Amino acid sequence: MNGSTMRHRLLLPALASALIVSATGAAHADEGMWMPSQLPDIAAQMKAAGFEGRPEALSELAQPPMNAVVKVGGGSGAFVSGDGLVLTNHHVAFGVIQYNSSPQRDLIAEGFVAADRATELPANPDYRVLVTTGFERITDRVLAAARGKRGRAYFDAVDSAGKAAVAECEQMPAQRCSVANMDYGSDFYLVKQLELRDIRLVYAPPSSIGNYGGEVDNFMWPRHSGDFTLLRAYVGPDGRPADHSPDNVPFHPPAHLRVSTRNVKQGDYAMLAGYPGITFRHRMASEFAGQVDWQLPSRVALYRRMIEVIENASADDGEARVRYASLLRGLLNGLKRAQGELDGLRRSDAVATRRSDEAAMLAWLDSQDDADTTRADIAAAQAVLDEVAATRERDQLVTTILRLPQLLRAAVTVQRLAIERERPDAERESGYQQRDTALIEGQLRQLQRRYAPAVEQALLTDLVLQYQALPADQHLAEFDAVFGTTPEQVRAAVAALYAGTSFGDETVRVAAMQADRETLSASQDPLLRATARLMPAILRLEDAYKTHEGELLRLRPAYMRTLIGHRRANGEAVYPDANSTLRVSYGRISTLDPRDGVRYLPLTTVKGIVEKHTGEEPFDAPQPLLEAIAKGDFGSTAEPSLATQTVNFMTNLDTTGGNSGSPVMDAEGRLIGLNFDSNWEAVSASWMYDPRYKRAIHVDMRYLRWLMAKVYPAPHLLEEMRLPAE
Amino acid sequence: MNGSTMRHRLLLPALASALIVSATGAAHADEGMWMPSQLPDIAAQMKAAGFEGRPEALSELAQPPMNAVVKVGGGSGAFVSGDGLVLTNHHVAFGVIQYNSSPQRDLIAEGFVAADRATELPANPDYRVLVTTGFERITDRVLAAARGKRGRAYFDAVDSAGKAAVAECEQMPAQRCSVANMDYGSDFYLVKQLELRDIRLVYAPPSSIGNYGGEVDNFMWPRHSGDFTLLRAYVGPDGRPADHSPDNVPFHPPAHLRVSTRNVKQGDYAMLAGYPGITFRHRMASEFAGQVDWQLPSRVALYRRMIEVIENASADDGEARVRYASLLRGLLNGLKRAQGELDGLRRSDAVATRRSDEAAMLAWLDSQDDADTTRADIAAAQAVLDEVAATRERDQLVTTILRLPQLLRAAVTVQRLAIERERPDAERESGYQQRDTALIEGQLRQLQRRYAPAVEQALLTDLVLQYQALPADQHLAEFDAVFGTTPEQVRAAVAALYAGTSFGDETVRVAAMQADRETLSASQDPLLRATARLMPAILRLEDAYKTHEGELLRLRPAYMRTLIGHRRANGEAVYPDANSTLRVSYGRISTLDPRDGVRYLPLTTVKGIVEKHTGEEPFDAPQPLLEAIAKGDFGSTAEPSLATQTVNFMTNLDTTGGNSGSPVMDAEGRLIGLNFDSNWEAVSASWMYDPRYKRAIHVDMRYLRWLMAKVYPAPHLLEEMRLPAE
Repeated sequence: MNGSTMRHRLLLPALASALIVSATGAAHADEGMWMPSQLPDIAAQMKAAGFEGRPEALSELAQPPMNAVVKVGGGSGAFVSGDGLVLTNHHVAFGVIQYNSSPQRDLIAEGFVAADRATELPANPDYRVLVTTGFERITDRVLAAARGKRGRAYFDAVDSAGKAAVAECEQMPAQRCSVANMDYGSDFYLVKQLELRDIRLVYAPPSSIGNYGGEVDNFMWPRHSGDFTLLRAYVGPDGRPADHSPDNVPFHPPAHLRVSTRNVKQGDYAMLAGYPGITFRHRMASEFAGQVDWQLPSRVALYRRMIEVIENASADDGEARVRYASLLRGLLNGLKRAQGELDGLRRSDAVATRRSDEAAMLAWLDSQDDADTTRADIAAAQAVLDEVAATRERDQLVTTILRLPQLLRAAVTVQRLAIERERPDAERESGYQQRDTALIEGQLRQLQRRYAPAVEQALLTDLVLQYQALPADQHLAEFDAVFGTTPEQVRAAVAALYAGTSFGDETVRVAAMQADRETLSASQDPLLRATARLMPAILRLEDAYKTHEGELLRLRPAYMRTLIGHRRANGEAVYPDANSTLRVSYGRISTLDPRDGVRYLPLTTVKGIVEKHTGEEPFDAPQPLLEAIAKGDFGSTAEPSLATQTVNFMTNLDTTGGNSGSPVMDAEGRLIGLNFDSNWEAVSASWMYDPRYKRAIHVDMRYLRWLMAKVYPAPHLLEEMRLPAE
Repeated sequence: MNGSTMRHRLLLPALASALIVSATGAAHADEGMWMPSQLPDIAAQMKAAGFEGRPEALSELAQPPMNAVVKVGGGSGAFVSGDGLVLTNHHVAFGVIQYNSSPQRDLIAEGFVAADRATELPANPDYRVLVTTGFERITDRVLAAARGKRGRAYFDAVDSAGKAAVAECEQMPAQRCSVANMDYGSDFYLVKQLELRDIRLVYAPPSSIGNYGGEVDNFMWPRHSGDFTLLRAYVGPDGRPADHSPDNVPFHPPAHLRVSTRNVKQGDYAMLAGYPGITFRHRMASEFAGQVDWQLPSRVALYRRMIEVIENASADDGEARVRYASLLRGLLNGLKRAQGELDGLRRSDAVATRRSDEAAMLAWLDSQDDADTTRADIAAAQAVLDEVAATRERDQLVTTILRLPQLLRAAVTVQRLAIERERPDAERESGYQQRDTALIEGQLRQLQRRYAPAVEQALLTDLVLQYQALPADQHLAEFDAVFGTTPEQVRAAVAALYAGTSFGDETVRVAAMQADRETLSASQDPLLRATARLMPAILRLEDAYKTHEGELLRLRPAYMRTLIGHRRANGEAVYPDANSTLRVSYGRISTLDPRDGVRYLPLTTVKGIVEKHTGEEPFDAPQPLLEAIAKGDFGSTAEPSLATQTVNFMTNLDTTGGNSGSPVMDAEGRLIGLNFDSNWEAVSASWMYDPRYKRAIHVDMRYLRWLMAKVYPAPHLLEEMRLPAE
């Protein structure tokens, strides 16, 4: 599944998210996550690919069909009926299914079909469907206060202007607003969304269909998953968004997509709309090199070492192993992904490709009027990146020290909360405002289940020893003071922390949330004393991060301007790197040759479900499905050329995490598929689109139709979607 | 690689090899291992498949081109020059390469190119190339003495008549003769072969090319192996076969194949000639059921258990683990193959297919004149099979007891040698004649490296306990007397054997080879005493085996006659099951869809070598190869449609173990490939040819030509084969 990865959580924001510049060599025929407003510019190439509609019709995100595409939970989705039915992935709606499950009524295992609207089940109260209603360029407003400033001041000015615009926008009831930074500080957009808060579960297949293949098949092709769920959005009797209430009525969306009843085959045009999270394709060549030469290899080494430390420290302690199972799984998954991304970027020769493209664009720049000032900005941006890189080993270790050991992390959180509380709520750092305290308390309480003192001590000791081994000029005085400067001192200092702290006690932790900075500093608890002494260093690193980010926000637009200008001179449009805003990709249903001598075919069939079936999770196809396959009654949903029922199909559409649940449409805009994953060979696509390997994986709508007609029937829902029941 | 499997060595001959009857449903278009003499009968279908020559020309095995196809070592090969160059697989010639290797000059690692004839290296003295010179039907002679007899007497009569024919035939100097049992006792052929004894190594790639991928890639596609070697046959100055001598001269074969310089592509006609070892396709339906329902599952269970016993018993003993490494590897490989064969037979629904074909042929039989007597013979054959099946669990265990524990096996061998020595040499059981003693002595000496007393004790204990758990009517009095009848007695008895024996001493074992039966029976050594007591049971089982085999030899021809008659009535020819005689298969270069959504392409390229390369065995492509690939200088050997160098290709040709080294020819008889393996999905093809899954894997002759032209150049050899040097 497309999803956020561990690394984002483990690394300093500077190394993972951020706000920067771009390029990957000339864009490939089907590459691109286009802003809808750009589609008229690329109308000719869309037509050439087979699109039969008017690109202009797709360019307005508050008009049909784009306003049928919504943000759902952490992914994407689409309205598929006039009564608010929303189609998204089983894994995107998983929290809703889980929320409604109990040992007595296990909807995860059994699936769910609401017999009528009265029996549709309310989602967890924080589950949302967001309909984009406006997308307004506010670059001038955001940058007005920033002009002339530098570094931290530039960052703060942009940040404040954005917050002010959001606050103003959210005056409108049920309107959720955010600012999107487009092209790394070049442009800013105010995104307005209608926030639907009463979402209900309507139809979910058993997870043995919705997640058939589980982790084993994750990222793999051929695939055989029915990864879809139907939800319904409700509003108050007045038609406005409302919290859940039995009095609410189905939302009538401004538009909905029609599920196709036609066949699809290799080579057919396809396009997809959704909310891709983050890509790095327009980063500078030096950043590509840093990713391949340092970031990914060092992540692989660090994760591998952490896994070893945790496994060794918990080898003889069954309970500790259970507590660290989830973290270990996350580290293993992160390790696998980092290795896959590294292999992919090397296979695609990404660094050399990006370097030669950058050289060409800089050569082109020489002929431009603003060449000197632009070149100076780009050089200055590079200098900032070099400065950031100078301490990257230290920053990676410090970030890991502050995130991975859970008890230490909790103590740092409490310290930070005390510091932020000294300011008015509106000025506090996000994540530490009044609205965040319930979440923080929950985390502090749950901690009990996710750490074991001996394991955490081993982990922290190992990380601090790695930090100690760094060159002296990367050291932080506060860290050295707390942990000492020799291996013996480190071991003793960390041991003393865990021997003496009472922070392992849930009530102590929760009580500490109320303490002020002075009280915490004066605490006799060694962990609280230590973290109080570390705080100045942590805040200093954060300030340096924001200073760097501010400079990059100021300087990267010069790089981006050059990249766009150079491409335009070659007759090419440039899509902005993904930033969780609505985008459109187009391409075709495609084979994939993953390695010499092997071709993946673009359509899978129910035959593959039976081949994979072992009866044991994750290959435990449910009996009704196996029986229906054996019966072979596929009716109008069978693919004639294969004489059987299809399950999933594969395209070369450009996607990334966040595109889960994106509707896949044919040349005439009919809904033919539901995006739910990409392939392992494309794990490096967040940096570089390689047309040989980038594929996206979708549920064939004919499989959905067959399941809903013949296997777990819901004729009333098919009728609502105006689909045949056989 | 196609090769003999563990099971043949582990099971009683009755369960593995033998001499029996047949059918698998109507033959598929490209199914068949045809006797050359049958090709005129199937001329129409060969022509339809694309063959452009005259099938009659292929039907004479002592005429060109068939007499260019030879038996080499344990596989097949072909003459490829008028001066006796023989092309076969690297793995078929591996013993020759190993024989000429030393730590100082490691030809396995480095490969070998003889600069001229003077530097060609002599093979190990027992290495042979056999040229078939005659194939004479002697059915009447063999069966004359057997008619009217039954059981053991029938077996002995056939056996003696065959031995007499061979002895008479081998009066001719350098002529090696054998009797081939065709169609399970229906026909017997006297095979005459010219035995070439001076074989020399001419050209071998490094094993990192010849065995690229090793065990990991074994049975796998896509494949990237240069599994070929060139040998040369020499004869005495008089032109007759001779032992190695510097005075010998190259053999001028009666014919040789021409290596093609044309391209090959998917769908092209292909055919292959060679010496396939054994297939079971015309066995009775009940035997198919026995294989699927009992033989393979019980082998899987037994091997798994033996693996567990050996691993547990050697867990704390590093030296023991080394000694059992080879046996363990064999068991793991046998387990994998058995499971693969079982999966394949189930996937192909082999039992049901065979059953329905058998029902149809028996229905057809009703309309025939000899229906009653034929039916009676078939029923009698089935009764014999039922009788054999009644003790199959016991026989499997006893066979394993006598084969797997090496020290026990050595003691049984010595006993048997003493018994056989009581008769004239010519009448002794094969394997125990004067000519066999050197081999036996070698095995007795080497034993030291392959067993550890504690492990063997654990193994034998476990096997005998399994035997003890069988129903009483399967027990053998001698085994019960030696090992006892309760688990405690078994453990004590086996422990006493190993505690008291001095047979672990090499000199004791070798000395015992000279002892007579009486001396051995009177020995104080507990192992020798025990095996002496077991011998009557062992001889009784062997007699029962020969009695059953004799009856089946007598009765199966009725089944075979019916099968052939029924097929002929439907206009179909029937090829005999493989029996190591020269056969021809035809078909085409083919894709394979191993599972839903995956297609294997039929040609692999050097790109795949680089993709697989890790630098570590078995994916350690040599530097000169990697450099030549990077250079991309493929000249006339590149495949134009792929714009690169091919390595291997895949056909649907019908092959089995023994076909290693078989020449693959195009529609005009040019040599386009060298067979070296089949695919994992086809591991069940020895029982049933399933056209969806049966494929054969070949070295593309263009890869050989490129390696010999550009990577490890041998222009003189290319010139000898009249091939371009670029």
